[in-house]
Amino acid sequence: MSKKITIAIDAMGGDDSPDKTIHGVSYFINKYKNQDDFLINLFGDEIIIKEKINKYRISSKNLKIIHTSSVVSNEETPLTAIKNSKNTSMWNCIKSQLDGNSDISLSAGNTGVLLVISKMILKTMNQVSRPALAALWPNQKGMTVVLDLGANIECNEDNLIDFSELGSALYKSLYPNNKPTVSLLNIGSEEVKGTDILKKAYAKLKNLSNEQNFIFNGYIEGNKLMDGDSNVIVTDGFTGNVALKTAEGTAKFITDNLKKSLTKNLFTKISLIFSYFSLKEFKSKLDPRKYNGAILLGLNGPVVKSHGGTDAIGFFHSIDLCYRMVRGNLLKQIKSNLSHLEKGE
Amino acid sequence: MSKKITIAIDAMGGDDSPDKTIHGVSYFINKYKNQDDFLINLFGDEIIIKEKINKYRISSKNLKIIHTSSVVSNEETPLTAIKNSKNTSMWNCIKSQLDGNSDISLSAGNTGVLLVISKMILKTMNQVSRPALAALWPNQKGMTVVLDLGANIECNEDNLIDFSELGSALYKSLYPNNKPTVSLLNIGSEEVKGTDILKKAYAKLKNLSNEQNFIFNGYIEGNKLMDGDSNVIVTDGFTGNVALKTAEGTAKFITDNLKKSLTKNLFTKISLIFSYFSLKEFKSKLDPRKYNGAILLGLNGPVVKSHGGTDAIGFFHSIDLCYRMVRGNLLKQIKSNLSHLEKGE
Repeated sequence: MSKKITIAIDAMGGDDSPDKTIHGVSYFINKYKNQDDFLINLFGDEIIIKEKINKYRISSKNLKIIHTSSVVSNEETPLTAIKNSKNTSMWNCIKSQLDGNSDISLSAGNTGVLLVISKMILKTMNQVSRPALAALWPNQKGMTVVLDLGANIECNEDNLIDFSELGSALYKSLYPNNKPTVSLLNIGSEEVKGTDILKKAYAKLKNLSNEQNFIFNGYIEGNKLMDGDSNVIVTDGFTGNVALKTAEGTAKFITDNLKKSLTKNLFTKISLIFSYFSLKEFKSKLDPRKYNGAILLGLNGPVVKSHGGTDAIGFFHSIDLCYRMVRGNLLKQIKSNLSHLEKGE
Repeated sequence: MSKKITIAIDAMGGDDSPDKTIHGVSYFINKYKNQDDFLINLFGDEIIIKEKINKYRISSKNLKIIHTSSVVSNEETPLTAIKNSKNTSMWNCIKSQLDGNSDISLSAGNTGVLLVISKMILKTMNQVSRPALAALWPNQKGMTVVLDLGANIECNEDNLIDFSELGSALYKSLYPNNKPTVSLLNIGSEEVKGTDILKKAYAKLKNLSNEQNFIFNGYIEGNKLMDGDSNVIVTDGFTGNVALKTAEGTAKFITDNLKKSLTKNLFTKISLIFSYFSLKEFKSKLDPRKYNGAILLGLNGPVVKSHGGTDAIGFFHSIDLCYRMVRGNLLKQIKSNLSHLEKGE
């Protein structure tokens, strides 16, 4: 019997938790009801969690509750959190990886604190200069990995190289049959464009491309992010964060306007009868809950941050993401991607 | 009789020019056929331009052709352009401002060359550290001015302050009755977030806010760009370029998917009969041609860059933008916005 995939969940983080988180767990248990290859460790207030487990009628032998007495609040800053958070659900959820009890940790709680605590407990991998926050974006052909999304406001070329290796490893854990293509986000596609750091990273990636981990595709501009021609898009945390949020805002702006147009009068409402199923499919494809979950890469254990404001379905998708990454051997992929860097040391 | 608004147009720049540009001029002449307060100077090959004027049946005494013998090619780099472009339509279109023959210049040609030539001929204003490229974005309530979009890859806090003043002046020239609100693009809305440069710019803008030119609204995140709560959004050219192009790409991604959904089968096609007019209105509101035209601010004369690939309608909107800015006294607004900086010198 092989070892089970063990997911540690901070049941208390984010809005409406633990109701939302446990509801999300129920969706997950239901999806994999015929599978017995996973175990979920729930960290939080045992009494409330049990209540919610009853509420959502979850009966599974693959669930375990680990009682913790407090919760990281939204007001807590990274500076004070280290002192205050030893008994929190978030801290213990991450620490369980260190103790060998979990393969991956998931929380919808305070982002700043999660990043600091994760780094403190799990430590950055030897071969990595800095951990990065990655996300999955929809594109015309499937999914793109984009990183960094805000863990590092300023980055040098070596950070960008590391992000390329980490992002490729993530992509390979989710899509084992494809060799990922990597692009650097820039303001033009010509080799001479961009900052000095980007130019240096470009030159290094061009050489690294001979290695077996990924194919370097050169620069990519913001308007091509969703074309699906690159599997991994690498940028510094400031630019990545602005790009991700701008895409979110634009999507919302357009769909809000579309909704307004299609519910404007009797005629447009009649039109909805005929286009109902197609529009439902359209909406489902773009549903941000499907892409919920930013992945902190480069520590000695993976940590996933769910959006704090997502609902049970969004949280379910983060659990599913954790499951798929561990099943795809994310950590082993990362180590194999980074092995050539070790040799160089 | 007051002086006429004089617009210099590079008739030869961009795809399909001068057909597109003259076709765009015909839309403009038609819109303002009852107005006699403008004059258009067309720079380019006189014979071909005359042909196109006949083709589009333009008869107006407010048009003048200034013959030029060559065109800046797309392959020209900013470095070689200075030497090679003295006889081009672009060079002479900009130079006519220096000679006092035009109030504003418009070109759909090579962007890099246009920026370099404009700066060389018109020179940066004394009170401005660096010129910036601004654009208008649609938002839930109207239009937002966003700058810089790529003229300056890296910026310090003084550049960002200048961009705030320039952007506010642009906004006031287009919407004379409103006092603009200004925000700095950042990865969080709290005062402690962001790079050191942003924090310094924040502190200075907070003090400047006591002046009469604009109201400083603090930081704004990418997902709020289109909410319409800020009239002017300030960022460095790298981030601004990525944000603008990401918004473009996202909008295209969503509308492409929507189109696919609504033309999928017989039912959805029937639905289009009922929603036709509303969807047309939706499409028109988001039509990128309406927002065509990036404005180079901070030189001793305004220069507008039309998208090279736009069509006649897009080009018409850039001409209209030029007209509205000059009518709104853009240069006077800029000088008045910058006067307090002069005092400090």
